[in-house]
Amino acid sequence: MSLIKEKFLKLGAEFAPGQEVRQDTSEIKLRGEKIPGTPVDFSHGDVDAFEPIPGSLDRFIDGVHVGGKQAYTEYRGSKLIRENVAEKLSKFTGTTINAERNFIITPGTQGALFLAMGSVISRGDKVAIVVPDYFANRKLVEFFDGEVIPIEMDYLTANTNAGLNLNQLESAFKAGVKLFLFSNPNNPTGVIYSPEEIGSIAELAQQYEATVIVDQLYSRQLFEGRTYTHLSAQNLMDPENVITIMGPSKTESLSGYRLGVAFGSSQIIERMEKLQAIVSLRAAGYSQAVLKSWFDEPAGWMEKRISDHQAIRDDLIAKFRGSEGFQVRVTEAGSYLFPKLPKLDVTIGEFVKILRVQANVTVTPGSEFGPQFTDSFRINFSQDHQAAVTAIERLIRIVEVYRK
Amino acid sequence: MSLIKEKFLKLGAEFAPGQEVRQDTSEIKLRGEKIPGTPVDFSHGDVDAFEPIPGSLDRFIDGVHVGGKQAYTEYRGSKLIRENVAEKLSKFTGTTINAERNFIITPGTQGALFLAMGSVISRGDKVAIVVPDYFANRKLVEFFDGEVIPIEMDYLTANTNAGLNLNQLESAFKAGVKLFLFSNPNNPTGVIYSPEEIGSIAELAQQYEATVIVDQLYSRQLFEGRTYTHLSAQNLMDPENVITIMGPSKTESLSGYRLGVAFGSSQIIERMEKLQAIVSLRAAGYSQAVLKSWFDEPAGWMEKRISDHQAIRDDLIAKFRGSEGFQVRVTEAGSYLFPKLPKLDVTIGEFVKILRVQANVTVTPGSEFGPQFTDSFRINFSQDHQAAVTAIERLIRIVEVYRK
Repeated sequence: MSLIKEKFLKLGAEFAPGQEVRQDTSEIKLRGEKIPGTPVDFSHGDVDAFEPIPGSLDRFIDGVHVGGKQAYTEYRGSKLIRENVAEKLSKFTGTTINAERNFIITPGTQGALFLAMGSVISRGDKVAIVVPDYFANRKLVEFFDGEVIPIEMDYLTANTNAGLNLNQLESAFKAGVKLFLFSNPNNPTGVIYSPEEIGSIAELAQQYEATVIVDQLYSRQLFEGRTYTHLSAQNLMDPENVITIMGPSKTESLSGYRLGVAFGSSQIIERMEKLQAIVSLRAAGYSQAVLKSWFDEPAGWMEKRISDHQAIRDDLIAKFRGSEGFQVRVTEAGSYLFPKLPKLDVTIGEFVKILRVQANVTVTPGSEFGPQFTDSFRINFSQDHQAAVTAIERLIRIVEVYRK
Repeated sequence: MSLIKEKFLKLGAEFAPGQEVRQDTSEIKLRGEKIPGTPVDFSHGDVDAFEPIPGSLDRFIDGVHVGGKQAYTEYRGSKLIRENVAEKLSKFTGTTINAERNFIITPGTQGALFLAMGSVISRGDKVAIVVPDYFANRKLVEFFDGEVIPIEMDYLTANTNAGLNLNQLESAFKAGVKLFLFSNPNNPTGVIYSPEEIGSIAELAQQYEATVIVDQLYSRQLFEGRTYTHLSAQNLMDPENVITIMGPSKTESLSGYRLGVAFGSSQIIERMEKLQAIVSLRAAGYSQAVLKSWFDEPAGWMEKRISDHQAIRDDLIAKFRGSEGFQVRVTEAGSYLFPKLPKLDVTIGEFVKILRVQANVTVTPGSEFGPQFTDSFRINFSQDHQAAVTAIERLIRIVEVYRK
């Protein structure tokens, strides 16, 4: 097989969220009847149930009317909009972000992740990533010919922190890891790293002169009683070795505009812009204007969005805990849950296909987040509340049918 | 220097179109006074002078109102929109394009190029590219650790064809080149490859089992008396070895929506989708809806757009030919001109900076299109007609001042 075909085998996207429609389910054998109910796609949030920030489309239309200046921005994004967003993010994160040197607008946070990873990883570099963590992290390291060094996170046992294995992280740095990538809150578990964990990550990175990329995509959606620690604001490591990624695609439901940002190290941002120049030139010019509505939501809008999600979370957790054999940690931020299943007599890949065909419920298999998570699945519970509850009831009925 | 820093040095974007605002011009010494006049940025088309297809914004707004289905499409793009566009492009190119297997929507044609190149090139692969050709082509080969094999095009001498050196191309294939990438019409010269040249490229690629990526971005804007040959319609080579790239960013002025497409080889399209999954997920969902207006312009709109551009072309050519020492080939398709300058006593890098500072005229240096083109520059003449003419008058005055 040619090298390029081999490389792309590792990039399988069959189980990636949103791609389920391309799955082959012809071999799946169902036990019993289909279970009717409103289809729910838990692979991503439902922006019809939780709509984009009010006025976002108006900001877009304003952008179109600005014309050529908005269509053809610098590759790192419109200066005016960078200034607008850098100021809001400086305040949110407690970090001083220079819009000219330390900030780039990207096509989604996925775009930011790709550009950041491509700007730091050379062939053969060892890169530490958390397991479980966002499924693209591993694929990015492999695409750039790096070597994945997994760092375990004992999220089910821990309760006052994320449960990151800091000894493993230090060993990894000692063994030559020069880049650590993690999401906070963690995707897929929804746990937040404690101040002590963030402090240790920063101190270790500083000691071993490593770069840290932190994906803070869901960091605004904090549930009752939770606090959040921004790595970039800790002043524990060289700011030229930190990149923070955020974006309005999740809590704010702006995914259809493909917007993300990265801020931090001026050197890495500079490389990210050079890479963006050959990847897609820039985030869609008119879309960039929509960032004006981010962190400028109507009064009370964010509070209501968070409390609505907390109510869904609580109902789903109660369902899982009411059924024997599920294990699940309560989401602390964001809209993900990562339940561990009872023993089944089908594989996780079969289970997610059965669930979709037999009960019209789409979830993402745990194996996307680390090869060992063959007994877990991720849901994004940013859905119509009632539909989500009844979909999880169907999921539990399916589990009963296929239980070992 | 670290490997990654070295790699990014090759990706310099200082002279890339649209990035001029980041140039350091503090060292530039001007002779004489500034020449006043309406600023013209010839580095890209002016979408205020030539506006987007009427109704494009309405299609976008329709897309927003579709909601979640439009925000979260498959990574290769919305099925309905792929079907719509594949049908129109099948008709335009004379090729049968299967929307499900042979088609992907990308963030601009730049996105399509990046994904296609990343899906074909392995480390160390020899890749043939034309000189001069689009500046990102070389950078893409280098980013993917390929080796650039330049194929010369004698565009100034030729007149019934593009002037591609087919002997060099065959030698390159003999020497192991497995990928040939070219733009047709050629960027930056605006020449069209003859039917014989396209036939020879296809036959050689077939003989040596090579893949061909053809960037047809400007192939709709054909000037009077010109005909165009679609490689994909020639049936001279295995269709699984051809990728064609197009998009509505140029003639149709839709760049602000960041839309492109690629069609052809199902295997390569499959890999492009996997790569898109980690690069930016998808072309902005709502933007995809704008593709409905592409190839569905109001009656007469395209004809007028072409004749307006032809009139600008003719006036600028007359200006260059009226000034001693310029050499320029007449644009056959698209909006680029690539004039060769008389001998100057400043470098091309200095010349473009001087021109911008002293005369408010922005052009792209020839060296972006191949290291040997240090005496040429590219302009995109999709500009306000009168402003373009007076800007070229200023450019010619600057040339007089710095002539050797």
